[in-house]
Amino acid sequence: MKHSQVGAIYLGGARTQFSVWAPAASRVELHLTHPQERIIPMQAQPRGYFEAVVDTVEPGARYLYRLDSDKERPDPASRFQPEGVHGPSEIIQTDFPWQSNAWPGLRLEEYIIYELHTGTYTPDGTFEAIIPHLPELVELGITAIELMPIAQFPGSRNWGYDGVYPFAAQNSYGGPRGLRKLVDACHGHKLAVILDVVYNHLGPEGNYVADFGPYFTDRYKTPWGRALNFDGEHSDEVRSFFIQNAVYWITDFRIDALRLDAIHAIVDQSASPFLQELAAAIHERAGELNRRIYAIPESALNDSRILRSPELGGYGLDAQWNDDFHHALRTAITEERSGYYQDYGEFRHLVKAFGEGYVYSGQYSSYRRRRFGNSAGSLSGRQLVVFSQNHDQVGNRLLGDRLTSLVCFERLKLAAGAVLLSPFVPLLFMGEEYGETAPFQYFISHSDAELIEAVRRGRRQEFQAFAGKGDIPDPQDEAAFLRSKLNPGLKSGGRHRALFDFYKELIGLRCKIPALRTPSRQNTAVSACEERKLLVVQRQADQQEVVIAYNFGDTPAEIQVRGKEIFASSSGPARQGMLNPYSFVVLLRGD
Amino acid sequence: MKHSQVGAIYLGGARTQFSVWAPAASRVELHLTHPQERIIPMQAQPRGYFEAVVDTVEPGARYLYRLDSDKERPDPASRFQPEGVHGPSEIIQTDFPWQSNAWPGLRLEEYIIYELHTGTYTPDGTFEAIIPHLPELVELGITAIELMPIAQFPGSRNWGYDGVYPFAAQNSYGGPRGLRKLVDACHGHKLAVILDVVYNHLGPEGNYVADFGPYFTDRYKTPWGRALNFDGEHSDEVRSFFIQNAVYWITDFRIDALRLDAIHAIVDQSASPFLQELAAAIHERAGELNRRIYAIPESALNDSRILRSPELGGYGLDAQWNDDFHHALRTAITEERSGYYQDYGEFRHLVKAFGEGYVYSGQYSSYRRRRFGNSAGSLSGRQLVVFSQNHDQVGNRLLGDRLTSLVCFERLKLAAGAVLLSPFVPLLFMGEEYGETAPFQYFISHSDAELIEAVRRGRRQEFQAFAGKGDIPDPQDEAAFLRSKLNPGLKSGGRHRALFDFYKELIGLRCKIPALRTPSRQNTAVSACEERKLLVVQRQADQQEVVIAYNFGDTPAEIQVRGKEIFASSSGPARQGMLNPYSFVVLLRGD
Repeated sequence: MKHSQVGAIYLGGARTQFSVWAPAASRVELHLTHPQERIIPMQAQPRGYFEAVVDTVEPGARYLYRLDSDKERPDPASRFQPEGVHGPSEIIQTDFPWQSNAWPGLRLEEYIIYELHTGTYTPDGTFEAIIPHLPELVELGITAIELMPIAQFPGSRNWGYDGVYPFAAQNSYGGPRGLRKLVDACHGHKLAVILDVVYNHLGPEGNYVADFGPYFTDRYKTPWGRALNFDGEHSDEVRSFFIQNAVYWITDFRIDALRLDAIHAIVDQSASPFLQELAAAIHERAGELNRRIYAIPESALNDSRILRSPELGGYGLDAQWNDDFHHALRTAITEERSGYYQDYGEFRHLVKAFGEGYVYSGQYSSYRRRRFGNSAGSLSGRQLVVFSQNHDQVGNRLLGDRLTSLVCFERLKLAAGAVLLSPFVPLLFMGEEYGETAPFQYFISHSDAELIEAVRRGRRQEFQAFAGKGDIPDPQDEAAFLRSKLNPGLKSGGRHRALFDFYKELIGLRCKIPALRTPSRQNTAVSACEERKLLVVQRQADQQEVVIAYNFGDTPAEIQVRGKEIFASSSGPARQGMLNPYSFVVLLRGD
Repeated sequence: MKHSQVGAIYLGGARTQFSVWAPAASRVELHLTHPQERIIPMQAQPRGYFEAVVDTVEPGARYLYRLDSDKERPDPASRFQPEGVHGPSEIIQTDFPWQSNAWPGLRLEEYIIYELHTGTYTPDGTFEAIIPHLPELVELGITAIELMPIAQFPGSRNWGYDGVYPFAAQNSYGGPRGLRKLVDACHGHKLAVILDVVYNHLGPEGNYVADFGPYFTDRYKTPWGRALNFDGEHSDEVRSFFIQNAVYWITDFRIDALRLDAIHAIVDQSASPFLQELAAAIHERAGELNRRIYAIPESALNDSRILRSPELGGYGLDAQWNDDFHHALRTAITEERSGYYQDYGEFRHLVKAFGEGYVYSGQYSSYRRRRFGNSAGSLSGRQLVVFSQNHDQVGNRLLGDRLTSLVCFERLKLAAGAVLLSPFVPLLFMGEEYGETAPFQYFISHSDAELIEAVRRGRRQEFQAFAGKGDIPDPQDEAAFLRSKLNPGLKSGGRHRALFDFYKELIGLRCKIPALRTPSRQNTAVSACEERKLLVVQRQADQQEVVIAYNFGDTPAEIQVRGKEIFASSSGPARQGMLNPYSFVVLLRGD
């Protein structure tokens, strides 16, 4: 059953169409609050929708919905919340004067992703402030930026996972206009834009959607509170809301890929799972637009099913973040073994991550206290996104300290080599490329005192597992946010500059050499000497073989394989055929 | 990781091995209560198991487990609860003097199922009391009996879905010895035995397993309370408990198939779903025993995935109950449209049930208020079990009244013809074959006053949807149980006898004619005239075509198809080529 697109859609000529799903209300009125105050009755439609087309309303006008002559609420599908999560919604321009009309059109295997948080990436913390940095990202070799969630959240400081208006680009970041400018500029630089969208929960403040209808279910719990209703009564409309959201970003904002946050928190027993419908809708829209558009979930399920085609019982999603690779790599270069790291730390885990994708493909996990995962054997390398740092792995630590502040530069380079020359899709976290020293701490700017205290308590509980050395920073304190801002000045010289150049060279190598360019399992062979922590990855393409030999041990290691050395991570002297501790070389073996 | 089988296993020579999973306890002792009182410490094993091998204990001895020197509890894997759900567990004989050493070995397509409730099938209400009736079931043409759940439940009167000791055959039914005698007798008559097992919840009284370990999770809710923990911490052991249960019935009781109750209430997000592991374990055991053993879930998911092979993303279960067929058939012969019947009642629904299996394969369901189901197109006819009555459809009514008391005999015969000549696996509910007049009411015999009141309240709420004509029978009142006992004397004459003979003849026809014998989609074509409510099912095999023409209308209908009439449901006169209201004919068209 088709119904109007939810939200306020400006049709041109001072006409605006309003549609809201509010099955919990028997009467809904449109309350225009600006520039003139007006109350307009809305027509009830099938399945709980209410609609109105108003002839004298233009972009910039603000409104609320009045439910049963009682509560006044912003639009769940608001396109803009100029006054924040509690204020009225604003009608925005449907059109935008796009400058770049070419899309990057990257294939998944061409993605080299740079994850960034808009608020802390620049001093201004806005979408537009990112634009001047794009040439440098291009210089580095990045092909896609990934924006941490930008849906309107409470206050002005937030990682983004507390968003409550999935269609509204954060006001303090510059709102929808700023986001469009950023995407336009990215496309002008042939950079793709990935948007992190949160379809597993809504934030705790300004969360009014339950007044409209059964967006939530009590049948399931998530770590972040009430689960969204994807399989109960009225779930078609809840699904439609989020699917429209995905299509909105793709269509109206020209977003190239969606990173789907934490799909393991989407519980759905239906015969036609939401995620399968979402993937199909995204791909259908991609077809209509003749563009390549991808859905890339974060998944803590280690379930290859989500990436398999629907014909094989899968959801048909395109790629997923692979935390196992991170944990195996991280524990190979640090001594961390607490919390979920307890499941890793053996060299064979890293070997398996390179060779198979998931480390846990059905074995018992001590941390989870159950067998975990299934085989990733059927997946292609381009379906797994890997990283040595990301916002979670940095930020969800007691002090939000980066790998940079934990290990020496040699190990940082080794980690970079593991990620960037891997047969997978690499992702960097902003600042990693030059060894940023600022932490990435957890920060919020809620207004409800009880909620703030609850968040503080939650953080304290979370970090019981990670033995702390000091107090947990107060997430509500603006200082946590300010401390997390990047210091790009660092990369003007010294080791930071050297690391940046190192990253750049590695990415250049990946792009230049056919055998390294394509993340694929077919062209890759992984072997290892566990005792000496030597990992050898052989990759082939165009009659050329490239060998990457990594030494994860703390003593020099001899490598048997021979070839022309085209890259070495270690600046220190090494004897012929020997690898320094925590270093790697790239060898070329032509035919 | 392998560990000992849970429960008390008699090893012979007065030795018994005890194993219990009790991760919630740090110390477990075996308290032998009979014939001599003894306390024996148990050894802690990995993963929360405790074990002991005792040299001087024989079958007949009774015991409890003492947890942390505090609570004393029966064994969750108790094989026998001679004193009911609150009393000690009893060690049983491992061996049994089986008389019949041949198994029926039926293929799924040969099943003609007779569902019965042990307590009300006979005046005695025991397993052994069923045995004298087996010849008559064989005479009727039945090939398998299906026992409603027999796991130990509170008191002596219960449908069985309140069972709390999944390994213990109900004491008031005659316990494990009685059940083995029944299975042995069935096999002697070449009857298969299907056991209804409940792996989605445990009953509310005598439910002590939570004292032992995290059998339950709070992350999900089921309609019957706490959900079993199939994907959280320690879920491997919970799964193992139930998988061992399935294997126990198959191995030690020679059960031929398991009916898995309400799998839609099993929530499991793991990458290796419990139901898939269960199906694999059942089939593996079948292979070891060189027997055909099936897993047949009740599923309200309309999700063909559960029956697809794991290679195609399925669970690999064998067949499922198809409620859609029932609802479409039922609303075709009654005026019922309340509750879930509101989704049915159009003749095309019945046509679709015959042609495709699921009626809801993705359309919007008014009752569920969402789209429901996916296509059953990939399924074989033998994967769908159909019925015009079953314990739920009869018993979950205000008065538990059977179809017999709602519609005339002509319609009963029509329903029988639809089920028994369908290209699916037919199931009868005890007494249906002769038009039993006793209701099948809901009955319990709990001992907790609060619980009893809660059940009464629950029933009242449930039947708000089905407009009632009178009070709801008190489920705790023994009268509800006694009223539900069969009156087999009815079939000694009159219309009841005629109906019995009718059923017998139909089943005979199904077995005799190759085209009717095999439930298959390939050999079946369904056509219909919706206006006249005429359904024509053509089936082919061995160069022979059989046409079954059903008239679901209340006026005589002309049928176009010609052939030799080999069966007619209507005893009344009909003109040549005409079908009386609510009747059917079977025509043979040789080549």
